[in-house]
Formats: sequence, structure tokens, C-alpha cells
Amino acid sequence: MPCIQTTVNIPLEKNQQQLLREKLGKAIAIIPGKSEQWLMLTFHTDCTMFFRGKSDEPMAFVEVKIFGKATDRSYDQLTKEICKIYQEVLGISLDHVYIKYEECSHWGWNGANF
Amino acid sequence: MPCIQTTVNIPLEKNQQQLLREKLGKAIAIIPGKSEQWLMLTFHTDCTMFFRGKSDEPMAFVEVKIFGKATDRSYDQLTKEICKIYQEVLGISLDHVYIKYEECSHWGWNGANF
Amino acid sequence: MPCIQTTVNIPLEKNQQQLLREKLGKAIAIIPGKSEQWLMLTFHTDCTMFFRGKSDEPMAFVEVKIFGKATDRSYDQLTKEICKIYQEVLGISLDHVYIKYEECSHWGWNGANF
Repeated sequence: MPCIQTTVNIPLEKNQQQLLREKLGKAIAIIPGKSEQWLMLTFHTDCTMFFRGKSDEPMAFVEVKIFGKATDRSYDQLTKEICKIYQEVLGISLDHVYIKYEECSHWGWNGANF
Repeated sequence: MPCIQTTVNIPLEKNQQQLLREKLGKAIAIIPGKSEQWLMLTFHTDCTMFFRGKSDEPMAFVEVKIFGKATDRSYDQLTKEICKIYQEVLGISLDHVYIKYEECSHWGWNGANF
Repeated sequence: MPCIQTTVNIPLEKNQQQLLREKLGKAIAIIPGKSEQWLMLTFHTDCTMFFRGKSDEPMAFVEVKIFGKATDRSYDQLTKEICKIYQEVLGISLDHVYIKYEECSHWGWNGANF
């Protein structure tokens, strides 16, 4: 029951989408109990974005939303991995990526809540 | 003060938008104190999305954000209803819809916070 | 480590984007410890939106996401300012703007969490 929502100010080519899917699908397993089998991904591309008042470089705002909680250690490892992924696949500098975590108490799927 | 934000990987036709508006406007009243009179809806359509590593079926990520709190029972009923709505109006399988709830302590409108 | 995500049902012209950037960059300093130097902005424009069952007027859903916490007083002042900004720059009525605040415990940047 995790979902990773990515907002970027650049377009994503098909092969980049597939690479992100593959790498994020592996990375989510850093959080115990989570896997690609339950992972949803959404991408908002070509958005108008600013960081530090500027818009001239590629940047990403990544929201990791999970049902339940995880440890600081897991989040630290996941941040490291996600930054690496966006640098490798999209060429976004590590210092132009924000990753925000949200722990959710109520999450529905298939007509019922977990 | 609720807002329902929907992200889907398909386009929405005008009549589908109106049906969703009408049905979600009724469904939100499942939560005591909420009604269409205070409901905002946002739709992000045609997004690149993946679930379980695949993108070949229609899917939805629905975020229900409310000011204050509600009971587990209300959320259970709302999840059931929202899944049904997305199946009826957009043909999305119940098991391709995630619904995430967020209870908010600070919410502004009309220049002031509630 | 704040991020302000704006969803509107109208397009944004270049000069409007720059005005929003400038004004939101100043407004965020209402929250102690926050400044444009760490502020990310994202804009989702031309979205299908409804408020009170209607879609015929410009409207905005503004999400202010911060690492850590702030006082009610800061949020009150920020809501007043943000509503004013959207009215001045985009002509959106004060009563067609929702501002939702999220206080985050885990926030990553540059390969590590704060």
C-alpha cells in the first residue's frame, strides 16, 4: 500500500518511465513489508516548478505515501536510493530533489480499508 | 472543508466529470459534517501511472483530505462508495483504485483558517 | 524544506508564474526558519476542478508542506497572505481558495533526510 508520486519540470520518455518503474519498484522494498506488488506510481511531468526562486534546472518533488509507519533508518536509505535513481535516470542533481514522506492511518483498496 | 484529489491514467470526458462531481458530492456526506457545499474536487487526468509494475489498465489514486477527523466506520463506507463510483463511471476495477485519507489540523479558506 | 503545491483550473502566463514565485517566496518567511532559499513550488494548471458542485469560476487548491511544525498564528498569517496573492495575481476570489497545511516528520534532500 505505498504510492510514490513524482512531480517534475521535464518530460519523461517511455524508456525513462520504464527505468523509473523498475528502480522504484526495487527501492520500495527497503521499507519492511513493502514491495512492487503493492506499489502505485504516478508521474506529473512538464510542470512549472521553482526551487530557490529559480526554474532553469531539472528538479523533482517526490512524495512517498505509505500505509502504516517505518523507521528513520528505512527512510534514510530510501532517500539515498531515490535521489540516486533520479540522478541516474533523469540527470537531476541530488540537491534538486525533495522527498517527502507521509505515514497514513487509513488506506482503501478494492472496496475496503486495510 | 474536504477536498478529493483524483489522479487517473485515462482522459475524462465532460459527462464523466459531471457524473463524478455528482456522485462524489453525495458520497462525501458519509462523513458527518461534510457535504458538497464545502467540497473541492481536482482531477489530474492522462497521467503516467503504474500499479504492480504495470500500466496497461485504467487505475486511480484518490486522496481524500479533510479538516478534522472521522471514524473508521465512515472511512470504510466512503472507500466502498468511492470504489463503486470509479467502477461505474470510468470502468476502473475495484482492485485498481487506492484511496488515501488525510486528516488535517490546519485548513484555510477565504483569508482565514478554520 | 517547505514546498507549496498549487492546483488551479486556469492557465498561468509566464509573468503570473514569476509574480507568484516572487510573492510566495516572500510569504513563506512568515513561518519562522523558512525562506525562499529552501522553497520549492509546483503548479498544476488547467486542471478540471469543482467547488460547491460548480466549475465556472477560477479556483485554487494550495498545499503548504513543511518539515517540522509551526504555530497557529503563523498559519493564520500565511493563509491571509496566500489568499491575497492568488486574488491579486490570478483574480481568484478569496472564497475560492483552499489552503491545506501538512507538517512532515521525514523530509529528504541531496541524498539524506533532515
